[in-house]
Order: sequence, then structure tokens, then C-alpha cells
Amino acid sequence: MNKRTFIFKNRPEVISASSAVGKKEGQGPMKSWFDMISDDDTFGQKTWEKAESYMLKTTVEDAIKKAGKTKDEIDILLSGDLLNQIMSSSFMARDVQIPFIGLYGACSTMTESLMLAGVLTDGGYCDTAVSCASSHFCTAERQFRLPLEHGHQKPPSAQSTVTGAGAMVISGIKSNKCNNKPDAFQVKTREGNRVVITAATAGKVFDPGIRDSNEMGAAMAPAAVDLILAHLSGTGRTFDDYDMIVTGDLGFTGKAVAADILGQAGVTKEQIEKKFVDCGTLIYDKADGFESGGSGCGCSASVFSGYVYKMLQNGRLKRVLMLSTGAMLSTISPFQGETIPGIAHGVELESEGDL
Amino acid sequence: MNKRTFIFKNRPEVISASSAVGKKEGQGPMKSWFDMISDDDTFGQKTWEKAESYMLKTTVEDAIKKAGKTKDEIDILLSGDLLNQIMSSSFMARDVQIPFIGLYGACSTMTESLMLAGVLTDGGYCDTAVSCASSHFCTAERQFRLPLEHGHQKPPSAQSTVTGAGAMVISGIKSNKCNNKPDAFQVKTREGNRVVITAATAGKVFDPGIRDSNEMGAAMAPAAVDLILAHLSGTGRTFDDYDMIVTGDLGFTGKAVAADILGQAGVTKEQIEKKFVDCGTLIYDKADGFESGGSGCGCSASVFSGYVYKMLQNGRLKRVLMLSTGAMLSTISPFQGETIPGIAHGVELESEGDL
Repeated sequence: MNKRTFIFKNRPEVISASSAVGKKEGQGPMKSWFDMISDDDTFGQKTWEKAESYMLKTTVEDAIKKAGKTKDEIDILLSGDLLNQIMSSSFMARDVQIPFIGLYGACSTMTESLMLAGVLTDGGYCDTAVSCASSHFCTAERQFRLPLEHGHQKPPSAQSTVTGAGAMVISGIKSNKCNNKPDAFQVKTREGNRVVITAATAGKVFDPGIRDSNEMGAAMAPAAVDLILAHLSGTGRTFDDYDMIVTGDLGFTGKAVAADILGQAGVTKEQIEKKFVDCGTLIYDKADGFESGGSGCGCSASVFSGYVYKMLQNGRLKRVLMLSTGAMLSTISPFQGETIPGIAHGVELESEGDL
Repeated sequence: MNKRTFIFKNRPEVISASSAVGKKEGQGPMKSWFDMISDDDTFGQKTWEKAESYMLKTTVEDAIKKAGKTKDEIDILLSGDLLNQIMSSSFMARDVQIPFIGLYGACSTMTESLMLAGVLTDGGYCDTAVSCASSHFCTAERQFRLPLEHGHQKPPSAQSTVTGAGAMVISGIKSNKCNNKPDAFQVKTREGNRVVITAATAGKVFDPGIRDSNEMGAAMAPAAVDLILAHLSGTGRTFDDYDMIVTGDLGFTGKAVAADILGQAGVTKEQIEKKFVDCGTLIYDKADGFESGGSGCGCSASVFSGYVYKMLQNGRLKRVLMLSTGAMLSTISPFQGETIPGIAHGVELESEGDL
């Protein structure tokens, strides 16, 4: 059997997080949890791609600032996005000048990045890493679907790509973690409970044979359930050991499919209703025309870095399994008759009590 | 200062490697070192993208077979390629059903992948990992340049994307490494010296301001030199401590630029001539019309997994620094006025004496 669950004995700490979203996301139910909301989805840039890269860079810089660090003190930057050749991440990495590990995990990037940051800091390979991801409605529409100017309509199962980014700063330095009397600077930059990474599980590509790119939630749902079950098995925990199991962007349709499969695997209806949450269903108001919810790397990146991180910081969540979910279609694979396989990577975070 | 060099105290072993190339590459100076050469660049598939994915899958399966393992015994697969949404790797990962970490590092993918496989196995996070990458002349031409059917001419500085793939199986299991009396199976599958990963250095994005996508070697050269110097500094070694320092795909133009910058940094002409090699200059015969050499993830992936690995296995090389080099341009970034930044990741391999 594949050994795909990594246990982080040194419990690296997420010492800060930052999230940025666009206008629509900033009007949704999560608005009070985001660090930055822009009224202008161009972010003052000349192209949508430059806008996404700028948003991501701003989020990374904000997270580093919140951590009380300078860029020189960050050893590794792990990032990815949905664009061809991860353009947003590559140009962001050029601008911030931190050693860069480029990732492509479709919308599963935030936890892919966080999992690797956990490995690097837990293993002592680097002291501090930044993990991040982004997506932008306008870059995704242009690249994967149709130009915005067409004003085309989508079927109800189609999710809306989130304009958003999230970044977390992860530290494996003991002095950061065990400092019960932090210096003045740390008091200013960190609030509430320590948030630590305790384990992660790497995803397997799962292909349910879906060919309709408006059904991405359903395409990703089996991979999400496989990841949840693999993580429980790898850590020896049960569904009840978590306050929340939160998927990235299954949306309303995909979440329902995942709930069905979880039910078949023996998880009770009550457990599912109480603990199983999806960022794609949280980020928009359904009444605003977002019938199937949100998607994109930025969906889980912004909700994890905003809502989930802060809920762990304030101690209202004690242990969470976060899994970003990705649909492995390319800009041309559907035209070559390929199905849309899914993948999900999972990271377990815990709230560790007062600083 | 960024802590970007990772020292692998447990010296994970590269227990097998496999390389596959297309027809042109199979006629070049490296032909005797490749494991598989195909006369048919379609690899029997209906599209170029499916051909690349098939070639990559075959290489991965061959490496696993050579390692005497089954797919179930591989914990993690790390892979990337040049295609939008790393299509070749994603569909390969679906087919082989091994937990998958998708990477995008442009042509720097092979060492990005190997570096992370080193971290995962050295740190005990997984026992065995496969590290791989691919590129295909016809998928790259179609995506980044012009359709093959145009029959367009290139300037002399333009490199030719290699149709090739490479895969290595990395094991952190002690019994694999320290077994001086291997069982019958190991004798059959492994020959010569043990090849171990001793250190790696993560790349920084370096932007020399080049805008011509026919000058990718020059765009990557400063990042390559930066990586070499960072690795020497991080490990405390000198140029003379290596039998070979081999870059991925600078080609003839880029290699000359890198040699100049190395010279400015104090490396002597003799050291450069004796030890500095580039896969892009090795893979084709210049007389065959490949005036600037090869490029693409598959260039370093196939030459590292073929030539360099076997030279370490047979003990003719004792310590090597391999660095794949990537140009971070996307399919649309040049049209938006962006320059072409470069990146390079480095991995140090040693030949450890007889099994």
C-alpha cells in the first residue's frame, strides 16, 4: 500500500495567513473573514493575468508582514494557479525573489502547497516557507471557457471561478512555537491560539469518467472522499475526531455527490451534516446567481487562509482536515476526448492553545 | 538569507532510472545511453499530447520495473511537463494510480521533482518516490510556437524541444541502501555502484530582461549560475569537489553565457572546460541542423536518467551537481510585454561504491 499520509511530529506552525478576494466574493457570506477585498477586479493592472499575479503577490507580502518577517527570512515559496505555465505564480515569484517551487494541482494547489511546506519545515529542510495559490474569474473564463465579452450562460451545475488568493507562512522554528512570552513584535503580529500542521495526505488521481466541464464538482467528489478516507486511515482517526472536514470547491452539486459517497462508506448523515463543509458553497450567496457555488484555487486558498485559519486561531475550531480539490482537465484535453479526472490533497491543522 | 540548500543526511538512493526518447534524439551522440528509443514520435497514439503522456508513462513503468517494485510499493509520484495544466503528467498519474504531486517548473522540472523526492524520502515521509518529467517536440511547437505544418524556420539561437522523458525511483529505505549482500532480485535489477542523493538547492527566479523566446538559453543562464553558486555556498563545496556540473538545457548559446558569468564569479577557464556540461549541447549532433542544441523538460530528464545516472552507476563519475533550467514564459506572457525570467533547481548525486 502507498504510504501517502505524512505525520508532522514537530508540528510546524502557521504563523500567519492572508487572504484577498475580488468584489463579488467580498459581498458574499465570508466577507468578514477576508483580509483584503478589492472593488476593482483589475487590481489596477492592464491585463487580467497581471491582475491575478498582483493579487497573489499582495497576499504573499501581507502574510509575510503579518508574520513579522522580511522576504529574506522566507526560505521557500510554494505556489501555483490555474493559468497556462502558472503565469500568476511565476511572475509573482520573480517579483518577491524568494526561492520558488512551482506547483500545478489544478484547484487542489493550496493544500498541495501546504502539505509540502509542512514536509519542508517539519523535516528541518527549511525554517520558514510560504504556501499560497490564486485564481481569477476573468483569467479562468478566458482560458478555459469563452471570452467574457460573449456573455454566455452557464448550466446550473457550473461553478463560478473565485477571484481570490490565500497565503500562509509556515515555520518549523522551535523558538517561534514554544515561546510562551513572545517579544513585543510577536504579540503585535500574532493573535490567539497557535495553529499547527499535524499531518497531510497526498492525493491520488481519481477518474469517474465525467466529460462535461460544467460538472467539475462531481468530477472531483470521488477523489475528495478517497482522500478523506485515506487520511483517516493514515492517521488512525475517525470523522468524529475533527471539528470540521472542509473541501475546496466541490460546490453544491459536488458536495451532494461527495456526501452520498461518504454515506456509502459508513459516515452517518448526522456526521456529514455537522462536520462536512465545502468552501465552494460558503463563498457566494446562492441568491446572487451563484447556483452551484465557487471554484478555482483561490476558493479554498482564500477561505482556508481567511475563515478556517481565523476560526482555529480563535479556538472555535480545534482540529480541521482541509482538502483542496482539483479537476485535472487542460485547455485541450476535453477536445481530445479525455474525461475529467479529479484529485484532492489534505492537510490537518490543529489549534494549540494560547500563545 | 534564504535557507535554500537541503542536506540529505540519510542519503536516499536512486534505485533505478529509465529514459525514453524519440527518433531524432535516438540518432544523436547520447543514443547508447537511453533505455528506450522510438522510431515513431506518435508512440502509436492519436494526438501528440497523448503521445507525450504515453512516453512518460512507459518510462515511469520501466523505472519501477527496474527497481523491482510494483506500483503499489511507490508512495509518491512527482511529475511535470511543459503543457498547459501539465496534461501529460496528469493523465499519466491517472493511469498509473500512484499518489501524485503535480509540478510546474518549466524545463527545470526534473530536478525540482528529484529535490522534493529527496526531501520526502530523506525525511522518512515516504519510503519510495518516483521523480520524472517529459517534453515532446510536437506538443511544444504547437503550444508555444507555430503549428508544425507551417514549416517555419528558426534563428540559430533557438533550441529544439527534446522528445524525451526520464524517471528515477528514489528510496529512503535503509535495507535497500545498506544491503551488502542483496537478494537475488536486487542483483538482477541493480548494477554497479549505489547512486545517492546528498543535497539539493531550490532555485530563485532570475530575470535578465530577455524578451525574445528564441533566446531561452540566455534567459536561463543567470539563474543556472546563481543556483551553482548558491549550492556551493550551501554545501560548503567548491567547483573542484564535483566531477561534473551539468545544466539542463542552456544549449550552445546559453552555455556560453553561463560560462562567461561563471568566469566573472571566479571559476577558472580550465574548471569550466573540464567540468561544466549542458544536456542541451549533448543530446543532438550539431551537424544535423540542431545549431543551438536541445531544450524542454525531457532534455535533462532523459540525459540525467540515461547518461549521468549510468556514469554514476559505473563509477566513472563520483559526485555530480545536476541542474535543470527553466524559462518561465507562458503561452501568453510575451504578448503582454513580459520578459522571460529563468529558474534552475539543483540536485547533488554521489556514486557510493559497490553494492
